[in-house]
Amino acid sequence: MEQCAQQVIALCRKLAGFTEEPGHITRTFLSPPMHQVHAELRSRMERLGMAVFTDAAGNLRGYYPAKSSSSLRLIMGSHLDTVPRAGAFDGVLGVVLGIALVEALQGKRLSLGLEIIGFSEEEGVRFAFPFIGSRALAGTLDAPALERRGPDGLSIADAIRAFGLDPAHLPAAKLAEETVGYLEFHIEQGPVLEGLNYPLGIVEHIVGQSRASICFIGKAGHAGTTPMKLRHDALAAAAQWITLVEAEAHKVPGLVATVGCLEIEPNATNVIAGSVRASLDVRHARDQLRHRAVDRLLDVAKQLANDRGLSIEWTQHLDQPATAMNPAITKKLSDAVMAAGYPVHPMVSGAGHDAMILAEQVPTAMLFLRSPGGISHHPDETVLATDVAAALTSGMNFLNAIGETR
Amino acid sequence: MEQCAQQVIALCRKLAGFTEEPGHITRTFLSPPMHQVHAELRSRMERLGMAVFTDAAGNLRGYYPAKSSSSLRLIMGSHLDTVPRAGAFDGVLGVVLGIALVEALQGKRLSLGLEIIGFSEEEGVRFAFPFIGSRALAGTLDAPALERRGPDGLSIADAIRAFGLDPAHLPAAKLAEETVGYLEFHIEQGPVLEGLNYPLGIVEHIVGQSRASICFIGKAGHAGTTPMKLRHDALAAAAQWITLVEAEAHKVPGLVATVGCLEIEPNATNVIAGSVRASLDVRHARDQLRHRAVDRLLDVAKQLANDRGLSIEWTQHLDQPATAMNPAITKKLSDAVMAAGYPVHPMVSGAGHDAMILAEQVPTAMLFLRSPGGISHHPDETVLATDVAAALTSGMNFLNAIGETR
Repeated sequence: MEQCAQQVIALCRKLAGFTEEPGHITRTFLSPPMHQVHAELRSRMERLGMAVFTDAAGNLRGYYPAKSSSSLRLIMGSHLDTVPRAGAFDGVLGVVLGIALVEALQGKRLSLGLEIIGFSEEEGVRFAFPFIGSRALAGTLDAPALERRGPDGLSIADAIRAFGLDPAHLPAAKLAEETVGYLEFHIEQGPVLEGLNYPLGIVEHIVGQSRASICFIGKAGHAGTTPMKLRHDALAAAAQWITLVEAEAHKVPGLVATVGCLEIEPNATNVIAGSVRASLDVRHARDQLRHRAVDRLLDVAKQLANDRGLSIEWTQHLDQPATAMNPAITKKLSDAVMAAGYPVHPMVSGAGHDAMILAEQVPTAMLFLRSPGGISHHPDETVLATDVAAALTSGMNFLNAIGETR
Repeated sequence: MEQCAQQVIALCRKLAGFTEEPGHITRTFLSPPMHQVHAELRSRMERLGMAVFTDAAGNLRGYYPAKSSSSLRLIMGSHLDTVPRAGAFDGVLGVVLGIALVEALQGKRLSLGLEIIGFSEEEGVRFAFPFIGSRALAGTLDAPALERRGPDGLSIADAIRAFGLDPAHLPAAKLAEETVGYLEFHIEQGPVLEGLNYPLGIVEHIVGQSRASICFIGKAGHAGTTPMKLRHDALAAAAQWITLVEAEAHKVPGLVATVGCLEIEPNATNVIAGSVRASLDVRHARDQLRHRAVDRLLDVAKQLANDRGLSIEWTQHLDQPATAMNPAITKKLSDAVMAAGYPVHPMVSGAGHDAMILAEQVPTAMLFLRSPGGISHHPDETVLATDVAAALTSGMNFLNAIGETR
């Protein structure tokens, strides 16, 4: 599988050349270079005897029929769009691995068909609205969503038409009823597998996520003439709270909580901050634990603001529930990894994926590949060829198992 | 004195109308509206029999001779420039009070002459270089300083010439050798006197000041996929340090320490901060205590960065020593305040003033007037007429005492 893995990596690197921004990897929803990506992948799939079409959401879909007349099918895939100035593997790797597994069948047919999907959009960059591709399969890309507009004034529907597709045909993009499962390969985008020295991880849950912002409102003042006891320093309050956010996350196993962004007024060296708006991002696989943590963080913010004579404003922006992968199909994936001789490491995905959307419709499993340095959304993002080979071997085991038991 | 106080306030408000920016009070070093301020004050001083000229640094200087042939003189004054969008009293009040005291003498001559100076520049706005006016009196406005350039490309020397003055005459701007003292009236620009319900404060020291910046360098990471234990969160480190800065200041009486400005990279909701640059401003009347505090804050930063696997970069920008007012003349000022029936409250000035520059040359005293709400550098900056009256009565007592003992 080592040679096959090298080819997978080479193809990902080739696709990375199809970009909106020369010298960088930037390919947002249905931007012109997506035509080149589709052309490259379409020709490869057609050479493998697959029937290929682009659905009305811009998802590239190739079908490799079953050996019998069965219309049952397993989907494999991931997304083909990228963040701005991305790496070469986030998303794309899952599509290319799916095609490589079909190729590795060397014409052999299974008891079910295989559908490879390159989703048109997962990152949410162009319309600040993620999962456009997988929402189309789930049938949740509704009329208001299609009318969302991006910074260039075009709507999602406009972007679909500009790509040469017709949004009126979206109902036909829905997941085939005979779909028995969805398998997504994806880079971990974090440092966990590298820390454990494992090539692969079995995703059991995708975390739920809360996003909020909190504004500490104090009183600006002169840094020289205002004694410490007479201050209502919004940045000192925010700093105390950030320390409590970190401590709360350390207390609850599996919880991550991040303050990544502050807006400080006036943000001047010699002026006590009058107000500070802080972002909060909290994630956990169990929604109840996440909700409790967020509630506690709001409570401690109220308390410390009160102690300091400040007020707060709290705004919840997102409360997205956690998504469980399907235990039965995930068990088959674990067995396949074990049979390939690799450690089975169950884990939680801290980021959202197309699998999150598909899991609401169809039994879904997800396999992570180690991210060297934990680096993603960056040109230095990479994968090890040996890890790609491990994914291919595990994937073949999985296909053989699922393709024979049907 | 109540009526006289009202006139002082009215004149300050009138001078506030001479501005670079209609609708706001903005008057930087030798900008065109300074001509109007000079014209207004010159005519008032000349009506009182004073000899008025503008020195080569743009300071407006009026002289009220002694009754004898004595050439000894006391200077009273403050600055006539403002910060952008300022209030009406910072600086200007000290000049107008000096003139009002001469007027209150009603032609009576003292045993020493009185020089009223409206300094051309104290705030440091136009050239990021404060005290241009008082430095000229101290003889420390040297050639390199004159060649400093502002954002418009003009140097300080150019600005002097553009105002119709000749920088070659700067040596003549030096403090007269016969000067026996300098008295500055100034609004407190802080909340201390209001908190104590005192109209006046006697400045004993102007604080020394350290300014530094510290950059915490961690590692940016995905807020969802990076477990808490694997993070090197620069904002969490900076927050912990800000809390320690505040605690250190609370521990040392009289110390103020402020982190007012952060630059966070990338400052995004869903990304762990990779680096945070924080400003530090530390002030105290005793340089040794200030230096010790700064050293401790650097030590704790090193320690916590080390504990978290981060590195730091520390840059010292300023180490300005504290300035003591002259005890003998300050005692006379205290006696004058007490004789007027007001509480004598010795205090430390947390901000720099022209008195800081003059104190190196001549016995200097400084009287603070209460700042309602502690507000300064803001259109809401004000003074109470009763406090201005208290300053006038105290000032008259001071002049009578110092003018008779000579």
